[in-house]
Amino acid sequence: MPAPQRSFVDVAPDSHFPIQNLPFGVFEPRTGGSSRVGVAIGDYVLDLCTLEDRGLFVTPEFQGHRVFGDPALNAFLALGRPAWRKAREIIQYLLNAETAALRDDAAWRAQALIPQADVRMRLPARIGDYTDFYSSYHHANNVGTMLRGAENALMPNWKHLPVGYHGRASSIVVSGANVRRPCGQTKAADAPAPSFGPTKSLDYELETAFLIGPGSALGERIPIDHATDHIFGLVLMNDWSARDVQGWEYQPLGPFLAKNFCTSISPWVVTLEALEPFRRPLPPQDPEPLPYLRAKRDATYDIQLEARLQTAKMNSPYVITRTNFQNLYWSIAQQLAHHAVGGCNLQPGDLLASGTISGPTEESRGCMLELTWRGANPLTLPNGEVRRWLEDGDRLTITGWAQGEGFRVGFGEVTGRIVPA
Amino acid sequence: MPAPQRSFVDVAPDSHFPIQNLPFGVFEPRTGGSSRVGVAIGDYVLDLCTLEDRGLFVTPEFQGHRVFGDPALNAFLALGRPAWRKAREIIQYLLNAETAALRDDAAWRAQALIPQADVRMRLPARIGDYTDFYSSYHHANNVGTMLRGAENALMPNWKHLPVGYHGRASSIVVSGANVRRPCGQTKAADAPAPSFGPTKSLDYELETAFLIGPGSALGERIPIDHATDHIFGLVLMNDWSARDVQGWEYQPLGPFLAKNFCTSISPWVVTLEALEPFRRPLPPQDPEPLPYLRAKRDATYDIQLEARLQTAKMNSPYVITRTNFQNLYWSIAQQLAHHAVGGCNLQPGDLLASGTISGPTEESRGCMLELTWRGANPLTLPNGEVRRWLEDGDRLTITGWAQGEGFRVGFGEVTGRIVPA
Repeated sequence: MPAPQRSFVDVAPDSHFPIQNLPFGVFEPRTGGSSRVGVAIGDYVLDLCTLEDRGLFVTPEFQGHRVFGDPALNAFLALGRPAWRKAREIIQYLLNAETAALRDDAAWRAQALIPQADVRMRLPARIGDYTDFYSSYHHANNVGTMLRGAENALMPNWKHLPVGYHGRASSIVVSGANVRRPCGQTKAADAPAPSFGPTKSLDYELETAFLIGPGSALGERIPIDHATDHIFGLVLMNDWSARDVQGWEYQPLGPFLAKNFCTSISPWVVTLEALEPFRRPLPPQDPEPLPYLRAKRDATYDIQLEARLQTAKMNSPYVITRTNFQNLYWSIAQQLAHHAVGGCNLQPGDLLASGTISGPTEESRGCMLELTWRGANPLTLPNGEVRRWLEDGDRLTITGWAQGEGFRVGFGEVTGRIVPA
Repeated sequence: MPAPQRSFVDVAPDSHFPIQNLPFGVFEPRTGGSSRVGVAIGDYVLDLCTLEDRGLFVTPEFQGHRVFGDPALNAFLALGRPAWRKAREIIQYLLNAETAALRDDAAWRAQALIPQADVRMRLPARIGDYTDFYSSYHHANNVGTMLRGAENALMPNWKHLPVGYHGRASSIVVSGANVRRPCGQTKAADAPAPSFGPTKSLDYELETAFLIGPGSALGERIPIDHATDHIFGLVLMNDWSARDVQGWEYQPLGPFLAKNFCTSISPWVVTLEALEPFRRPLPPQDPEPLPYLRAKRDATYDIQLEARLQTAKMNSPYVITRTNFQNLYWSIAQQLAHHAVGGCNLQPGDLLASGTISGPTEESRGCMLELTWRGANPLTLPNGEVRRWLEDGDRLTITGWAQGEGFRVGFGEVTGRIVPA
């Protein structure tokens, strides 16, 4: 058995960013300098430009391209899995405790390893199009039960295809940005007419999302067994939602202003390579889906996910959701294959999200709508405060990690604080 | 009364592109050379780069920017109305029959005026996000009647807000591109399970769409009385639709694969300046909308719109829809103000579409779904062929124009031919 990989950079056992992870992101040094691509290692960012400058990525997989000086991952995404694997191999080698090159070169280290406290993270990619699926059975079933009763909770299509819709790409922001309470039209069931004002039922949605690498041409399908060739990695997502706005506007064409005021994602993209040890077989689906949705070897991942709420009066966050990526009924390969099956073209940097990831238990519900059952059962927080929905000053943070033997492949977090309308 | 404007470039009386129009687009010379911005005049494209090269746009409104060598209008869009007006003024002056500068300079003319037959038109802009509204009362009412009966045809929200949803930006193509019949899941009402295959109910949707100029910041509204500051101009759109796919997939989150396989737009963007003589008061709305949707002076435009079908067996197209932009209930200012009212940020190059524009009469229905009442009343074409939906080999062309005194401000066309799955 090979010795576990270890880096010369100090990494705490509960760090999200050991050498087994190496997630990619875009950072801007607070001391100045342009945004560029880096990899997280412990409490540091490894500046990949300094490696590129030294010719470390001059390999056939990179086809002569320089991609890490860009303020977005798109050029790297377009290169595909051979380049992603090669980059990971090179970075893992360079950061290994046994490799002297960077370890023993103080000047290079000072340039290449920047404390995360000294950088601002940016959106990892220019997101061309953003799609949101609805792939958690328990979420769809809970919401459907609230709206239509338990008998008609799931729409007839739900178990035959990964239901999804197009979201708004321009309002995707990176973790840390404040979230302004949106205004909109709402109408109480007993009101004669709608009224306008700040939403009274602001919610979070705990989601993950994956970034597209090489795209596909218009009119072309992506066979499901090739789907992961197009998937670079995953981030955490909070799909902030205004439930009262949604209730009034969403029929018949789906959510619009209820969702497009802000969507937050985590800055570090965890690659499929890093998640490989946490692959688990996708549970059998009943009914069996149509052939274009059946992979030879489909998979899910064992990723623990949490949402934490901290109100303005609390000193520390309180976990209100504990769920797992495995609560998704549809796999990311199925989502991708379905997306492209009618000929819709995908492009590097497109983002495809899971939908709220709820599990079968109460604590695994991934939004306030479900946790409080539309406000009927308010949450009581440890300090005695009560929440039906998010209030101004509340901070909501989603985090997630896959637990290895003595290390964590983590996503960091996506956080945002509600500010008044 | 001033003499009507006339260009030294020959313009036929029924041309869509007289000196009163001057729509902007992006073209690529067939003889080589990169894509750049031009203006249509008669059967020619005026290459704006040759004007920019001579310093004609060095004005305060252009703030030192060169924008016409770009392969997209985005940089010009971002400059806003003062630059758009100035550009129009300069081009109108230069093309005027009384202005000698270009008229009498054979070398410059040869370089600047390229026959439209010698260029390929490109998408006018990099479209970041695309939104489709549902703003024709008769379309919403017809579709609702088919689905839910006449009593429940309109959803309760429809007369209170411009219903809209996010569409797919990547699959927007410019006029002329073939449209591959998409495959997808469908389920007949009496079938026990869905099946997969080419759509059996391929449709067109006659729409218009407007391009956003200067955008807005996340969290910021656009007051309705400033809405047109953000609107550059309009194009024609065909929102190709697979009705059987739509029927099975669209609940509860709206259309997805039924629409994202292809959306075609016309290449020339007709500015609000060119449409100004065709402004008409927006008819009163009942109920009166909420204050954020009430403009001091809201408007619609008198634009005639037609859809023409030509099957593989026909020698010429046959008009199957005759409608007018005035059939839209909600104005473009209302659509824009609504879009931004919750804080969604808009960006130069975003595209906001009208939804199918149907009128009160049978011939003014803007899609096959309505024309044939979901296939129940097939169309009989002049050569005896019958159509419930579009078939392979069919060409569908949408055109539109505003009729002035002795001239037309036209949109050209958006056309596409169906090719087999």
